Amino acid sequence: MENSSQNWLYENFDHTGSAFGLRITRKLDEVQSPFQKIEIYESRDWGNVMLIDGAMMVTTRDNFFYHEMMAHAPLFTHPDPKHVVIIGGGDCGTLREVLRHPGVRTAVQCDIDEQVTRMAELYFPELCESNNDSRATVMFDDGIAYMANAAPGSIDVIIVDSTDPVGPAEGLFNRAFYENCLKALRPDGLLVQQSESPLALMHLIQDMRGAMRDAGFQSFRTLPFPQPCYPTGWWSGTIASKTARDLTAFREEDAAAAASKFGCRYYNAGVHRGALAMPGLMQEALGD
Amino acid sequence: MENSSQNWLYENFDHTGSAFGLRITRKLDEVQSPFQKIEIYESRDWGNVMLIDGAMMVTTRDNFFYHEMMAHAPLFTHPDPKHVVIIGGGDCGTLREVLRHPGVRTAVQCDIDEQVTRMAELYFPELCESNNDSRATVMFDDGIAYMANAAPGSIDVIIVDSTDPVGPAEGLFNRAFYENCLKALRPDGLLVQQSESPLALMHLIQDMRGAMRDAGFQSFRTLPFPQPCYPTGWWSGTIASKTARDLTAFREEDAAAAASKFGCRYYNAGVHRGALAMPGLMQEALGD
Repeated sequence: MENSSQNWLYENFDHTGSAFGLRITRKLDEVQSPFQKIEIYESRDWGNVMLIDGAMMVTTRDNFFYHEMMAHAPLFTHPDPKHVVIIGGGDCGTLREVLRHPGVRTAVQCDIDEQVTRMAELYFPELCESNNDSRATVMFDDGIAYMANAAPGSIDVIIVDSTDPVGPAEGLFNRAFYENCLKALRPDGLLVQQSESPLALMHLIQDMRGAMRDAGFQSFRTLPFPQPCYPTGWWSGTIASKTARDLTAFREEDAAAAASKFGCRYYNAGVHRGALAMPGLMQEALGD
Repeated sequence: MENSSQNWLYENFDHTGSAFGLRITRKLDEVQSPFQKIEIYESRDWGNVMLIDGAMMVTTRDNFFYHEMMAHAPLFTHPDPKHVVIIGGGDCGTLREVLRHPGVRTAVQCDIDEQVTRMAELYFPELCESNNDSRATVMFDDGIAYMANAAPGSIDVIIVDSTDPVGPAEGLFNRAFYENCLKALRPDGLLVQQSESPLALMHLIQDMRGAMRDAGFQSFRTLPFPQPCYPTGWWSGTIASKTARDLTAFREEDAAAAASKFGCRYYNAGVHRGALAMPGLMQEALGD
């Protein structure tokens, strides 16, 4: 993280060789939790910005791409999602989107770091506006242990909304974790995980799918979407299903009806369909 | 443009409040043309990079998004494009993509600045590989004058592949220019122009469409696509038609057959269809 004299805050992404920056007006907060350093800046044009260990996690302006795609794409792919678990997601933006679905009965958010949520409540209150929904459980615990202890066949959709596969989130990207997810899912169950940049980190998507496949997941689909503040600005989520199925089929009519009711700024049925049309470079690397 | 001590080259986008950067290994060239300053850097992970007046124009690694979308989306929307004119486009990448269409009989590239093409030949030779195609005319002249003097009803597709609407390209974003384009187009004719970021610069897209409409263009469609090295990493092209028509209709079967034959890394029929599904924030701003 560089802080130039003109108040531009840059994040240099070593693994992609690219950088993203924002014009910052001031630093609002900083806390060192038991797990990581969380910083909040105010930007001139992007609202507030949260950094975890120097990596931009959320800005007020652009988080809707990620949260809408990570929640609505899997939930409209599942035939009838009632019980949803979010591993990570401490900024609560994914939880808010999940709770827009009237059919959802329970949504558990399990992030290891309570401080992330406390900072989100202060600096991104709009993302936390559904935390008191009676269907929501906001807990702070180890997501790996949570999935290891989850009742078998109890969950419809697991959303892994974590930081990168280094540091606290490392254990969310391996076979042992995926095996516990598989066991906890109902037969129709889906797992979705943020899967980095399809331009720069296709090998990570391949490794992730490999570990999911080794754990017993049957079908896979990786959906690209814009996310300006993440490396290369082009991001993805990978959906995996417990049983073999066509993950290009989704509840298209429900999605079409819901998108404006939900107030989505990016996701809609056409955008979902579009994200299923993989560009050549993804088809070539992923073979689907 | 900032050049930090660790050889990160940043472009600060004043109007979006965001920045993009690349890890640079060395500066390869710099020339001051009669129109603008052109710089070439070598990056560690993105190949070569061309900057014009400090703005990143092209990198070896990510230019395919832009060139494929700016060429193939309008050419597959047109029923039978035979005569194509590119205004700007001096790096020759759009020309190369246009010439992949076997039905194209003539493709004229008219960029005001010969030095852009000379630098592209040296540092982006792959983009220039079709410059000697017998159907191609690479000329260096004022695109505004070129369109003012073009024979009425002679062109099928005009691609405006220019820098931002400041400096030499300013005259490519107003009613007088669009009126000349309209006159030069055949009845089925299409104009496509790069139209900046739908996240940050929607007002520019609205202004551009307003001027096109004032000039007599009838139907409009703005297609978003990723373009990492441009502001926000999310970019767009706006297609306008001389006569009223449904610009969501395109030669989908031809596009499906062509994408792999053309060697496209991003564009294909599904991606085109996906780009026609506008996210809510674009529907709201553009009303279509």
